[in-house]
Amino acid sequence: MPDVLKNDRFLRALRLEPTDTTPIWVMRQAGRYLPEYRATRERAGSFMGLAQQPEFACEVTLQPLDRFDLDAAILFSDILTVPDAMGLGLSFAEGEGPQFARPLRSKADIDKLAVPDMDGELRYVMDAVRLIRKELRGRVPLIGFSGSPWTLACYMVEGRGSKDFATLKAMCWNEPKLAHQLLDTLAQAVAAYLIAQAAAGAQALMIFDTWGGLLGPGPFREFSLRTMAQIVAALKADAASRELPVVLFSKGAGQHLAALADTGCAGLGVDWTIDLADARAAVGGRVALQGNLDPAILRAAPAVVRREARMVLDSYGNHPGHIFNLGHGITPEVQPEQVKILVDEVHQYGRTLRGGRR
Amino acid sequence: MPDVLKNDRFLRALRLEPTDTTPIWVMRQAGRYLPEYRATRERAGSFMGLAQQPEFACEVTLQPLDRFDLDAAILFSDILTVPDAMGLGLSFAEGEGPQFARPLRSKADIDKLAVPDMDGELRYVMDAVRLIRKELRGRVPLIGFSGSPWTLACYMVEGRGSKDFATLKAMCWNEPKLAHQLLDTLAQAVAAYLIAQAAAGAQALMIFDTWGGLLGPGPFREFSLRTMAQIVAALKADAASRELPVVLFSKGAGQHLAALADTGCAGLGVDWTIDLADARAAVGGRVALQGNLDPAILRAAPAVVRREARMVLDSYGNHPGHIFNLGHGITPEVQPEQVKILVDEVHQYGRTLRGGRR
Repeated sequence: MPDVLKNDRFLRALRLEPTDTTPIWVMRQAGRYLPEYRATRERAGSFMGLAQQPEFACEVTLQPLDRFDLDAAILFSDILTVPDAMGLGLSFAEGEGPQFARPLRSKADIDKLAVPDMDGELRYVMDAVRLIRKELRGRVPLIGFSGSPWTLACYMVEGRGSKDFATLKAMCWNEPKLAHQLLDTLAQAVAAYLIAQAAAGAQALMIFDTWGGLLGPGPFREFSLRTMAQIVAALKADAASRELPVVLFSKGAGQHLAALADTGCAGLGVDWTIDLADARAAVGGRVALQGNLDPAILRAAPAVVRREARMVLDSYGNHPGHIFNLGHGITPEVQPEQVKILVDEVHQYGRTLRGGRR
Repeated sequence: MPDVLKNDRFLRALRLEPTDTTPIWVMRQAGRYLPEYRATRERAGSFMGLAQQPEFACEVTLQPLDRFDLDAAILFSDILTVPDAMGLGLSFAEGEGPQFARPLRSKADIDKLAVPDMDGELRYVMDAVRLIRKELRGRVPLIGFSGSPWTLACYMVEGRGSKDFATLKAMCWNEPKLAHQLLDTLAQAVAAYLIAQAAAGAQALMIFDTWGGLLGPGPFREFSLRTMAQIVAALKADAASRELPVVLFSKGAGQHLAALADTGCAGLGVDWTIDLADARAAVGGRVALQGNLDPAILRAAPAVVRREARMVLDSYGNHPGHIFNLGHGITPEVQPEQVKILVDEVHQYGRTLRGGRR
């Protein structure tokens, strides 16, 4: 890409290199808490309308960067675009989570699944990546992403959100071969998808394993971790993605950080239920950590937001490799001013913590 | 109590004494998966009608014992009876979770809260305990229980279920004194409630901290663990409850097991996201552990249920102090036959594992 990156804190942190201050971005930073996002969504008609029209996706991707001093942009899209492109028919009912019109109901449904065409059904994603890269003009790096195979399979088999995704779990226990067939197909599709995003201009890649934490230790390794490791290996084997840092985020899986680091990823997302000092000890400082403020803190008073942000920074300490983030996506009722307070405090205190060196 | 306990495996395990086999009971064992439960609930008119009429509560408490060789009975009630008795108006909409008609909205609401009268608003619970003890005739011990102060407060402030209970969290950060006032009042009320259940005949006590795992490490200690420790201390200081083993169950808080054991409880509930060998190492064998089969496994084939049950038993090993249970409540769509398969396998394999000694 011809543009020179003006702010590379995020990428430096992922390489465990020193930075002048701690980089920060916010999961779901382009979201309903922003009035300008809600206005664009209204024009687009629906969430999928927003995601599938590159001009709209680009517009909302850039909105939070115009308001806040964020150190990364993340492609506006959904974690479930791949199964949608596989023909399952993704939609979002107002106030509800994602739904598939044609969930997987049989072995025949799973046999029929194929890796979607990255220049066909998923072309809109690559067009969005290209447009956002162009419009970013090197301000900050652009993160591409996908859901993990386990998380995609949860929704594909259940058809919608669930407390326990017991339908997929039952398949894992009753028909493990079929479950592995599904997960392996998804691993291939997600790898191809992330490679295509890299080729289109994404500068880092993230895999959201939202539901990995619902699994016990053995099943987590077998059904969630294994396919993420396959994807990281595939990304390292491809010229387009080889150099890109990969971040894995298994929510609620703090006990598996060391195993996740073994995949060869550059960084790990960490939720707020584990202290970053413990998380760093668990991975032996081998990978960068991204997190981990409780998103509910953004509903507290500004002084509390600042104090809690400093506590997160202190828990990581003056080591390279910390990317500040929430431990989960920002929620719609948060006041945008709170995000500005957070971002500015992280940069200011992060600078103090690091003694201003770069 | 005059009746001699015919099956004391559960209480022996809580005292870390050897047993001939591993005791088992199932969270929510009196529940919608049983057709006889659904029939009684229909007659009672509603969930609260079931809980508040001792004859009905007794009937459903005993139903699973007539079907399965369970080693403990648990009072049929709800974790939210205490706030209901405080005047908040508990109800259950069909297919929804609990709701309060009058959630806490201000400091004035919290100032007004008082420990309810155990012989007044909560008399129905004590009547149920007395009746169940009588009808059990010493078959197995009876467990009394309550929600934890943190978990009660979650619902009392939010008014209903929530993904993140951010309203209470915001209070903890913005008005920590008020949050502590609420939690301390609830700790007093829950202690009095559990003491009254002990006086009425409960033989073990359990505190369900369903939402403790939503908190980061510091807030967990400050807002959830602290009040549970207060309650355990109060129970140890009262003649009626002094001898009763207490089990604490903070779901999703596997990283806090050692701190939970420090409260002086006899046992800890453990969800399925942690291996029991690791959990036992974390508490140094000081307390009994209760768990931890993934409830979704009850949707798998019988051979899988048996295999996974044996894996849980093996992960704990041939040590005293294991009470087999699910890692969360049984779900409505489970076939009752699956529970029989589980209970029988646990007893049979548990006997083998222990070499049949007592």
